[in-house]
Order: sequence, then C-alpha cells, then structure tokens
Amino acid sequence: MSERKQEILEAACRVIGRRGVRGLRVEEIAREADVSVALIYYYFDGRANLLQRVLEYVNDRAGLYTETRPAAGASARERIDDVLLREIQDDPAVIENVIVWSEVTASALFEPNLRDAVCRSNERWAASLAELIRTGQQEGTVPGGIAADDAAVRLTALVDGLSSRWLTGAMTAEVARDLLQQAIARELGVPA
Amino acid sequence: MSERKQEILEAACRVIGRRGVRGLRVEEIAREADVSVALIYYYFDGRANLLQRVLEYVNDRAGLYTETRPAAGASARERIDDVLLREIQDDPAVIENVIVWSEVTASALFEPNLRDAVCRSNERWAASLAELIRTGQQEGTVPGGIAADDAAVRLTALVDGLSSRWLTGAMTAEVARDLLQQAIARELGVPA
Repeated sequence: MSERKQEILEAACRVIGRRGVRGLRVEEIAREADVSVALIYYYFDGRANLLQRVLEYVNDRAGLYTETRPAAGASARERIDDVLLREIQDDPAVIENVIVWSEVTASALFEPNLRDAVCRSNERWAASLAELIRTGQQEGTVPGGIAADDAAVRLTALVDGLSSRWLTGAMTAEVARDLLQQAIARELGVPA
Repeated sequence: MSERKQEILEAACRVIGRRGVRGLRVEEIAREADVSVALIYYYFDGRANLLQRVLEYVNDRAGLYTETRPAAGASARERIDDVLLREIQDDPAVIENVIVWSEVTASALFEPNLRDAVCRSNERWAASLAELIRTGQQEGTVPGGIAADDAAVRLTALVDGLSSRWLTGAMTAEVARDLLQQAIARELGVPA
C-alpha cells in the first residue's frame, strides 16, 4: 500500500474514533489527512469504498498489537488466547481500532452498502481463528472433537459484546479479559 | 406509565429503528408520535433523558416477546434458554428492539451522557439472568459450581455479538440461535 493511502486510512480511523461514522463526510477525512478530497476519491472511489477499506485496515492493524504477543514456539492454543485477548487492552491504538470496528459495524444497520464489508471482515476474523483452532487440534493442544468454525464465531462475537461493555465503562479491561479467558477455556480447554 | 408517554417511547423506537440515533432531534420523534415537542420535554426533560428511557423501555419490552415462551412449570434452566433465545427472532418487533438497543449502545461511545444508562441496562439484563441461574442452582437444574454472575455477563454479551452478525446478514437467526444454544449448554449444561 502506498504511504499516502495508508495516511488517509489512519486519518479516517482517527476521525471515526473521535466522532463516529454517521454523517461523516469525505471532506473531514481530507482535512485530517491534509490531502485534497480529489486524492481520496482517486485512491478510494468515494465514501462507501473508503469505509470498506477502513474495516479491512483495522482488521489488519489488529494483527500488529504487541502487548500480549506470545513467545516464539508458543502452541496454537496459547496463540488463540493471545489473538483474542489482545483485542481488549487499555491502549489508545487498540481502543481506536475497537471503536472504529464497532462503529462501522453498528452503522451498517442503517447503511446497507456497508453490510457486505462488515460480513466479510467478520468472516475473515472468524476464519483465521478457526484455522488456529484446527492447527491446535493437529498439534494436540486443542481437543479434536470441537467444531472449530462454530467456536470461532462464538468467541469473536463474544469479544465484540465484551468490548462494547468495556468501552462504555460497564467493566474494566481486566474484568473483560478474565471473562473472555474463561470463555476460551470453556470452548477449547485450558492451554497444556 | 401514561398512555401518551408510552406512545412517545414507541414512536422513538420506530424512528431510531429506521434511521439510528446520531443527529436525531426531538422534533422527529414528536412528528412520529404526532405530539408537540413541548409535550416530549414535559414528559422526558429533553433528548438525553428520553434516550435513557428508550433503553429501559426496550429492556422491558424484550420481556414480553412470546414466541419461545416456555410452558408453565418450566424449570429455571429451560427459562434461561427462553430468555436468551427470544432475543434473536425474525420478528419485526424483536428486530426493532434489537436495533434500538444496539444503536443506543454504539452511540454511547460518542455521547458520554448515555453511558450510565447503557451500563445500567446491561447490568439489569445480566442481573436478571444471574438470578435465574441461581434459581436453577437451587432447584438443581443448573450445576451448583457455576459462577452465576460471570456466566450471565458472558451470555448476554454473546447475545449482543451474535445479534449484530444476524442483523447485518452475516448469519440467519436460526444459525445465531444454534450457536447461542450451544454456548448456554457449555456454560450451564443441558436442560434436564
């Protein structure tokens, strides 16, 4: 991705993180990114496509969080804890990511042209987790009888529900992470 | 609650279900309810308070869904399935309720004066489920060792996460209900 394109996506995330998606105009993102509206149209072909790329971008960015990154040689079961728990951290970059994700998802109820992108992002997220569960089953750190796809959808949906409670202040990140870790253990067993 | 007050709350739910909360003005709700703006201020003291009452109202209304209502004499464990599964139904009244709930919750990230109401509504919902879990433990239909409050928060958070996937079209209501039912069984065991 070109540097300029990435700057625009980061500016879009900052603006959405501050004020949400509803009524958001490309002009506000152009101002935040310090580029012309025309350049945003050149790269993204308008608001709907830009928001779809923003979703993919926050998905990709979530893979780069480092706080809980497990040691090299960690089992798939340990990496599962990591990829889920790293979504709930009191870190400004993580919080911005989660707000953008939650906000674009919620506004898709009122903007049908966002729904495909939201569904695809959810599927990508669940599919990558299901893959990790199957790896754990092959290496013997996750019980073989578990339906990987179902467990992955449930766990990613639970992350969304707990994140919403964390971000509105109903619970601390620590409590949300504890609840999530117990859910993972119920779905997949405890790391060996 | 006076009939007029209830009409205003129902009008507010219809408007929010159609177009969301962001930028919503009391005038639009007045028009939908066919009352004056002054009357809405008289009953609700402005937009923030009205939205808080809308949250309580959808919470109360959710208790009236009937499709899955269990037979008289059902065990607490059976009623737990019911109170959770009835949140995910292809029924216009349920869908409107879930959209309003999800939308007010999501917009609380950007409207701090809504956060307390969202937290309280979440707490009420989880507390009523925890109570039912404890009743099940007393009557012996739910295992005694389960931490009722934790299980209740996880299951209500999961309902939110699955509802979002259902309403954006990522899965059918039937699939979401199956996934939820399996999660309940993992948390609480299978109904006796």
